Amino acid sequence: MSEKDRVEQATDAASLARTQERSAQIEEQIKTNPEKFRILTGDRPTGHLHLGHYLGTLKNRVRLQNAGVDTWVIIADYQVITDRDGVGPLKERVYSLVTDYLACGIDPEKSTIFNHSAIPALNQLMLPFLSLVTESELHRNPTVKSELEATNGRAMSGLMLTYPVHQAADILFCDANLVPAGKDQLPHIEQTRLIAQRFEKRYGHAGLDHPVFRRPDALLSQVQNLLGTDGQKMSKSRGNTIELRMTADETAKMLKRAVTDSERLITFDPEGRPAVANLLLMASEATGEDPRTIADRIGDAGAGALKALVIESVNDMLAPIRARRAELEQNQDYLRTVLQAGNEKANEQAERKLQEVREAMQMIY
Amino acid sequence: MSEKDRVEQATDAASLARTQERSAQIEEQIKTNPEKFRILTGDRPTGHLHLGHYLGTLKNRVRLQNAGVDTWVIIADYQVITDRDGVGPLKERVYSLVTDYLACGIDPEKSTIFNHSAIPALNQLMLPFLSLVTESELHRNPTVKSELEATNGRAMSGLMLTYPVHQAADILFCDANLVPAGKDQLPHIEQTRLIAQRFEKRYGHAGLDHPVFRRPDALLSQVQNLLGTDGQKMSKSRGNTIELRMTADETAKMLKRAVTDSERLITFDPEGRPAVANLLLMASEATGEDPRTIADRIGDAGAGALKALVIESVNDMLAPIRARRAELEQNQDYLRTVLQAGNEKANEQAERKLQEVREAMQMIY
Repeated sequence: MSEKDRVEQATDAASLARTQERSAQIEEQIKTNPEKFRILTGDRPTGHLHLGHYLGTLKNRVRLQNAGVDTWVIIADYQVITDRDGVGPLKERVYSLVTDYLACGIDPEKSTIFNHSAIPALNQLMLPFLSLVTESELHRNPTVKSELEATNGRAMSGLMLTYPVHQAADILFCDANLVPAGKDQLPHIEQTRLIAQRFEKRYGHAGLDHPVFRRPDALLSQVQNLLGTDGQKMSKSRGNTIELRMTADETAKMLKRAVTDSERLITFDPEGRPAVANLLLMASEATGEDPRTIADRIGDAGAGALKALVIESVNDMLAPIRARRAELEQNQDYLRTVLQAGNEKANEQAERKLQEVREAMQMIY
Repeated sequence: MSEKDRVEQATDAASLARTQERSAQIEEQIKTNPEKFRILTGDRPTGHLHLGHYLGTLKNRVRLQNAGVDTWVIIADYQVITDRDGVGPLKERVYSLVTDYLACGIDPEKSTIFNHSAIPALNQLMLPFLSLVTESELHRNPTVKSELEATNGRAMSGLMLTYPVHQAADILFCDANLVPAGKDQLPHIEQTRLIAQRFEKRYGHAGLDHPVFRRPDALLSQVQNLLGTDGQKMSKSRGNTIELRMTADETAKMLKRAVTDSERLITFDPEGRPAVANLLLMASEATGEDPRTIADRIGDAGAGALKALVIESVNDMLAPIRARRAELEQNQDYLRTVLQAGNEKANEQAERKLQEVREAMQMIY
């Protein structure tokens, strides 16, 4: 496969199968040698985190952190303007993210939480990296293409086109060698690997005994994609999500409104009965029980009984998170300290890495 | 004219006429109020400066500096990799630039000399600025187009496509409101003005009593474009230039080889006798005398007499520059100090400006 195709075809069946296999191997290695891995993960501060985020990514980050993997979490504030003009109530959203992270179990003693706009030396890596990719390669990136389509005829901005290069800088500046990812992130990770490879080929090792940049692997997530309470894709703009900052009552109210079907007997049939299956999956994720077992127990007690069970199990799962969240919200100074400490550590790392880049590129005068 | 056309049409006759008129007005204002202006100018460290650079831009920078205009000179080291893979003997070339600047009269007490790769907060401005331009707008930039054509079928790299955005950051970070420019730089200055305007429209003033970014004007240069000694465009790759670091003997040797024509009577006829006219222009630029007057004085003494006069006048002009150059070359520590002091000042300015940008974009947490 040619280099240019590797980004475009990162989500093809064959590539995907290889990535899945590699992810399984890495999961095994994490069990015995977690210290060999550093993860870069993060979120755009465009809204509040919800149940889908928690079950889809946050829980996994906490698992990896607690397994001993060095975890770096970026709040990608510049990416807020990738697909929109305004930044919205940015400060509130950034602290909502920090609060959610800590409430869900990200431990600032073990993990590094930082934000894009505070790390100039990271952002400077855009310059050399942009010289290592072509416009047409960026243009063919399938994730950029589909993000652009989702903006309803908005023109491709320079930032939208180049954000995979910025994401490469996020990953490479901190020596991350592992990126937890869903399928749609795979083209970005392949682009990042290519940039690391091309940088090394062009500029060498900077007199170091190791390459300037590590080549990151994707760690494909195993989780089911939960739907929103309306049976559609979970999305805050649809109002079909359960935000982590909601109360138990608000959560119950949302779940009571969830769509189901008219059949009284509860069965787990994701193809034929997606809305009911989705509720069963929520209960399953919250309790660890198999969705079929849950369905059997409810039997013909109907959707009302199913919803009551989902409400109870989701609220049970979220109760300790909410308690920590409420406590953290009372302590804004602490949240600020956590972000500042993370930014300080990220700045030190970014300046060290930029210095290696300057050495490799002979930009030391 | 729509916004998108303004970049594309910056070099059209009507736009050019407006820019010329505005430049003339600014030249008048500089005579009385030089302190109202700050200039951003600079060079890519891809080779050694030559006579064309001296007469075309360096002399003008020194004139403006000495008239009291605050002058910032950027050594654009990241732009070296815009149209080539390797960086070449970069350190040598950077110090050759610094030496030439000082030898020609740039005074580090009055002017600020700095280099791209040392100023992370400047480079960070790429991120917000990229969100303010579209890919197609970048693609239509006539100067980017012609630079791309000059690379002989090389694919458009991300850096080539976006370098006008980087150049906007160079200009806007330091509050420059004036950019000495030839015609082919006008699209970049128009793009810079658009970015400043769009940033203000989108993010406002950051609680300041002035816009975050000034809108720069072009200061069109009045100088004639000298040709190389072979009668072609002056270019170091053609070996037809007189580098400022050459000795008087090397200069004489180059000029003796200059092409002329077989007519003995010397006349100033740029259309009909471009090679002879070019030599007359060199003598004219060096002595301040009108090229026609010089031609009349030589009369039918022929090309040999003309060359002898050009050699004498160019060497006379360059003698003090060469003397200072030789002295500076003996003092590498001083050159390093000049660049470090410039970078320190540029970093302070860039961090201050980035902080204003963060405030406007509400990225203060």
